Amino acid sequence: MRQIIVEAPASSANLGSGFDVFALGLSNPKDTVELTASKSREMCIRTSYIGGGSVSLPEDRAVRAVVESIATKFDLYYDIDALITSRIPIGVGLGSSAASSIAAAVAMNHLFELELDNKRLLEFAVEGEFAASGSRHFDNLAGALNGGFVIVSGDSLETIRFTPPKGMAVVILTPLLRLPGKKTQYSRSLLPRQVEIGKLARNVSLASTVVAGFAKGDIVMIGKGLEDSVVEPARKVMIPWFDDVKNTALQAGAAGVCISGAGPSMMAIVDSVETDPERIRTSMVERFATHGIIANSFITNPGEGTKIVEGP
Amino acid sequence: MRQIIVEAPASSANLGSGFDVFALGLSNPKDTVELTASKSREMCIRTSYIGGGSVSLPEDRAVRAVVESIATKFDLYYDIDALITSRIPIGVGLGSSAASSIAAAVAMNHLFELELDNKRLLEFAVEGEFAASGSRHFDNLAGALNGGFVIVSGDSLETIRFTPPKGMAVVILTPLLRLPGKKTQYSRSLLPRQVEIGKLARNVSLASTVVAGFAKGDIVMIGKGLEDSVVEPARKVMIPWFDDVKNTALQAGAAGVCISGAGPSMMAIVDSVETDPERIRTSMVERFATHGIIANSFITNPGEGTKIVEGP
Repeated sequence: MRQIIVEAPASSANLGSGFDVFALGLSNPKDTVELTASKSREMCIRTSYIGGGSVSLPEDRAVRAVVESIATKFDLYYDIDALITSRIPIGVGLGSSAASSIAAAVAMNHLFELELDNKRLLEFAVEGEFAASGSRHFDNLAGALNGGFVIVSGDSLETIRFTPPKGMAVVILTPLLRLPGKKTQYSRSLLPRQVEIGKLARNVSLASTVVAGFAKGDIVMIGKGLEDSVVEPARKVMIPWFDDVKNTALQAGAAGVCISGAGPSMMAIVDSVETDPERIRTSMVERFATHGIIANSFITNPGEGTKIVEGP
Repeated sequence: MRQIIVEAPASSANLGSGFDVFALGLSNPKDTVELTASKSREMCIRTSYIGGGSVSLPEDRAVRAVVESIATKFDLYYDIDALITSRIPIGVGLGSSAASSIAAAVAMNHLFELELDNKRLLEFAVEGEFAASGSRHFDNLAGALNGGFVIVSGDSLETIRFTPPKGMAVVILTPLLRLPGKKTQYSRSLLPRQVEIGKLARNVSLASTVVAGFAKGDIVMIGKGLEDSVVEPARKVMIPWFDDVKNTALQAGAAGVCISGAGPSMMAIVDSVETDPERIRTSMVERFATHGIIANSFITNPGEGTKIVEGP
């Protein structure tokens, strides 16, 4: 019998202008996947789930899809038990299915000594994303796997990573809204199909500002680049009072604010040396409250990526 | 009587995915603007021109526009003689009018001790670009002013600069083609007005790869980012055998190839530690030649930007 425990963190994808390309791996919260495998004559995969008192079908589906695709690819005739402990809020734009998916891929890789490189890990893990949300995107997976700030290209699956500046705090705010089912698909359906070429140039400039900010360790520069002229204007309709809460955070000293992934969570980044992130968090929560909207919130940091907690 | 000589270099804008946002300031060739000013009761501006044996109207117009707009803004009642020495080929995508324009702005700034910051310099210099080519874009100006690799936003005129990696050589190739008059406008007319959102994400990823490459000093990474799914496919129709010559250069060891600015020049970047840039230059020239096209060419490097050669 072999056993392994892997944890993978929440992540925030897009960062404004970097739609489907950028992600930031956070230090907390994290999902854990524990795999137990015994040799068998058949492949048999069971998943079970601990988290917030409720059953999570998307995370279950994600982990099962990843374990199954790897087991099948490598002819692993084992009885595999997967226990998912989920602490990342599900379906609110914090990469919960990505975290479970990449944790499962990393766990399988180490348990069976498959020596998959990061690119192959992403290829297997994306099957979990697809099972959970119906779309194959790599941004959250790359953020959760590598931690820090990542640029990922859907073409080549090559990931470029930067270590975020020290003192960069992240405020996550999740307004409790009634969202349609299949939220990721809904959120993608809001996007324009065509973009004016002037907006393309503007977004390239903004995204370049984000990358330059991480490269130069300049939190103010990163914050400026979090703007977006394409996706945010289309998606913010699902978050009532988005602009108002964003402006409140900026006035309170946030370096930048954007929608986290497909939403409805919002992310503010803060230079914690200059500004107390708690002040930003409170200002945003209170601003939502004046409009009668309750928001969950927490303060975190960029993190280190997926880690093996206990292994063979 | 006051006198100043300023030189500004050629530049290559766009770098594939960074349409209207990126530019690379080159070390050579350079344009020189020499201003001589005597106190007068009226404003009087004369321009004259030395270069390649022919008269250049666009550069004349550019310098005149910049000198005039600054003189008017600051009530400079002077007799100003501007002598432009042009060594940058005109109208082929190497930022010749940008070089003269920014040289004129820097010369005026120092001659009259105006203490303009880079943003103000760009604002005045863009009047030269407009006079020469009919459009107000800042990429070549920022490249020629600052040297190295620059990201510029048309919104804010804030420029972000990176020093290119040592050993990065630049091969410039200008096929001698019959181009329509008003080439910049023609070249812009080829562009699609609308871009699919998938291509936006692809170009953001490519542009981010370019920025990351300069930040990490990785010439191979920069080269990969020089691809482009929007502007190059539209514009390459004006350069016969573009793909063939590009592939020849890549096979010969170029890190990346793109159209320089609005074309028809092509730029290849080369890690000169690994590959002799002369080999890339020859391979491209010979490939054009097999199709009956003659191409001018030279090898240069990223440069330092605009310099005062002689001043008061």
